Amino acid sequence: MESEANTASARTKAFDLDRTISLSDGIFAFALTLLVLSISVPDIPFSSSSSELWSAIKDRQNELVSYLISFIVIGGFWIRHHKFCGTLKAVDATFLVINLAYLATIAFIPYPTQLLGDFINPAAFAFYAAAISASTLAAAALNEHAARSGLLSQALTPAETKEGRINGFGVTAGFLISIPVVLLSGELWLGYLCWFLGPNFHRLIRLGSSRKH
Amino acid sequence: MESEANTASARTKAFDLDRTISLSDGIFAFALTLLVLSISVPDIPFSSSSSELWSAIKDRQNELVSYLISFIVIGGFWIRHHKFCGTLKAVDATFLVINLAYLATIAFIPYPTQLLGDFINPAAFAFYAAAISASTLAAAALNEHAARSGLLSQALTPAETKEGRINGFGVTAGFLISIPVVLLSGELWLGYLCWFLGPNFHRLIRLGSSRKH
Amino acid sequence: MESEANTASARTKAFDLDRTISLSDGIFAFALTLLVLSISVPDIPFSSSSSELWSAIKDRQNELVSYLISFIVIGGFWIRHHKFCGTLKAVDATFLVINLAYLATIAFIPYPTQLLGDFINPAAFAFYAAAISASTLAAAALNEHAARSGLLSQALTPAETKEGRINGFGVTAGFLISIPVVLLSGELWLGYLCWFLGPNFHRLIRLGSSRKH
Amino acid sequence: MESEANTASARTKAFDLDRTISLSDGIFAFALTLLVLSISVPDIPFSSSSSELWSAIKDRQNELVSYLISFIVIGGFWIRHHKFCGTLKAVDATFLVINLAYLATIAFIPYPTQLLGDFINPAAFAFYAAAISASTLAAAALNEHAARSGLLSQALTPAETKEGRINGFGVTAGFLISIPVVLLSGELWLGYLCWFLGPNFHRLIRLGSSRKH
Repeated sequence: MESEANTASARTKAFDLDRTISLSDGIFAFALTLLVLSISVPDIPFSSSSSELWSAIKDRQNELVSYLISFIVIGGFWIRHHKFCGTLKAVDATFLVINLAYLATIAFIPYPTQLLGDFINPAAFAFYAAAISASTLAAAALNEHAARSGLLSQALTPAETKEGRINGFGVTAGFLISIPVVLLSGELWLGYLCWFLGPNFHRLIRLGSSRKH
Repeated sequence: MESEANTASARTKAFDLDRTISLSDGIFAFALTLLVLSISVPDIPFSSSSSELWSAIKDRQNELVSYLISFIVIGGFWIRHHKFCGTLKAVDATFLVINLAYLATIAFIPYPTQLLGDFINPAAFAFYAAAISASTLAAAALNEHAARSGLLSQALTPAETKEGRINGFGVTAGFLISIPVVLLSGELWLGYLCWFLGPNFHRLIRLGSSRKH
Repeated sequence: MESEANTASARTKAFDLDRTISLSDGIFAFALTLLVLSISVPDIPFSSSSSELWSAIKDRQNELVSYLISFIVIGGFWIRHHKFCGTLKAVDATFLVINLAYLATIAFIPYPTQLLGDFINPAAFAFYAAAISASTLAAAALNEHAARSGLLSQALTPAETKEGRINGFGVTAGFLISIPVVLLSGELWLGYLCWFLGPNFHRLIRLGSSRKH
Repeated sequence: MESEANTASARTKAFDLDRTISLSDGIFAFALTLLVLSISVPDIPFSSSSSELWSAIKDRQNELVSYLISFIVIGGFWIRHHKFCGTLKAVDATFLVINLAYLATIAFIPYPTQLLGDFINPAAFAFYAAAISASTLAAAALNEHAARSGLLSQALTPAETKEGRINGFGVTAGFLISIPVVLLSGELWLGYLCWFLGPNFHRLIRLGSSRKH
């Protein structure tokens, strides 16, 4: 009797987890595909020559770069979410809510991508960085909740937990710090440097600690 | 022989249920992601300054709020549909039709979201509330049909059934009542209050009944 | 050894079938959700009054009807494809190609939907009917190929096969016949009558044959 | 103990593979469905006559052809990716990154499709061919990595590996060669001939080698 209830409960948990992952994958896939709409079609006549079209495409190089950046960013979030979901054994109601908040920030990314592609100025950069920071903070909340509420299977060692936190902290810090850096200095390349350093923060840490030994 | 037919029939039912859930999750995921298109890109020149872009983004704050509201609304529908599907053991032809009608109302939500973001007036509010009411009514029809046609597994107790109905009634009533309230008073905040109270109706009920004891 | 090869082959077939169904469900879900983009947002100023917005929404009633029609049409295709896939035991290379051709016609439907919503004239009607006819013809080709190449499991009886063909024939004939009917008569309601009668053709047939007895 | 770890590891691998395939299928499905947005809606008044609408649709025949070409191209990529994933037994971190790069090129295809439909000139053709070449190169990298890192199950024989490479080489070569051919000659039909010959390259090879015997 009890074992039957356990099985039913286990099935419910597996079902919840499966559908949550399925919705998440759908939103990731769709957000990745919607990015292409942020690249505007040249507004030149049908009979334009090849050279006119080339120069119109060249004018869109900033949009093409934003497409690439956002594909890498959302792709990176997917890889992390994917690894994280592989360590889950169940989800609870709070998890569903935090996960939806996280997905809201992921589904929002095509909008700041459009701004980053359409305008080269600190405001567009800061808006984009703030949006990505929101995603990383929601991801961190998701990780913390899962760890504290016993949703994780045994697979995660303390060392892995620590590495996950350092990794997450680096990414969040990189995007958050880039906002004042760009707004105060007015130099976009300094902000892009923060974006690049953040996700590699754990590598720098590891490099530092391996030098000590 | 009979057991084989039963197994085949069970497999068919599992297949039907799986594909129905898969289509539903797909539509939920895309409706959630399409919402971002309701936030319009600032129509200012490429060379605009940071302050011009900030003020253009501020002009879109109503669209950003609508995005958030609709994400919460659709996300809430998904959580309810998700819980509900976890209690199903099979689907029948009528279920598929009602579910498609329900999904039609979910897939429609990005349109009223756009109106709610683009116009601050009672008509936009009432149109949005009517669209959401249609979703809640379709969801209630789905619940009733499943319960009456024996599509539910044993997992649901009478108390759970009752709570589900009170919950569904609260949400529907909140959105339906908000329509005349806003159209007659012309005050949008009264309508938003209805939206907030509706989904918390069962909590108010429970609060009242626990005070009696 | 042989049994191992059989198992591997069975796994490959199950995998092929699963991914084909998954891609199909994705395209159905997305086509259903994209339909909402065919309803244009009122092009009136932000400060418009409620009555101005109501009249702008009323102007879009033709688009709203087209949305409903296409949701019913694509939803109907999904139900048929869903039932059909439940009878499959495997897919082959030709099946994949025909299925992709079928999905190309499904993914195309948002375009004729837009025309049907934007223009009330025989050309828009005929274009829509032709697009849906292409879908029904591709669906019929898919059915025929699966039956002839032994891709079906035993579940289908000859009576079911016959009913499926009559059903498919009715739908195709309804949409195909509506094209000359509307182009020659110029009356759209005659065409809509064809659309309604086609999918109910098998019921009329059954009604006729039951009267004979 | 060890066998338990193996099982856990096997489960992780199966999970990784499943989610990777699920994300890939999602992106394929959306890219296929987004193509329809590349066909522009006639910009003529609501009250236009049937003949005005027909001529407006005829003006879009180039966009309709581009829709078809891209559906065939992405559909072809899906069939290859689908077959390829059926031979995988696991994925690793590098695989995820290459797969995301591959999906970035697939999700990008709606943009060159729009250019190919909107402009008939060598630049639009070359841009499209370059985008597809990027997809084929990423697909080749994915194949090579899987083969070298032992991600494939035993199902693939050396003959199949060779055929896969010849096939992939033909497709890539067809698209890459078409770029200089069209830019130098200015003749689009020569480029389309390359596109047609490339994917049939392995058939020509086989034809040649069977003649020798």
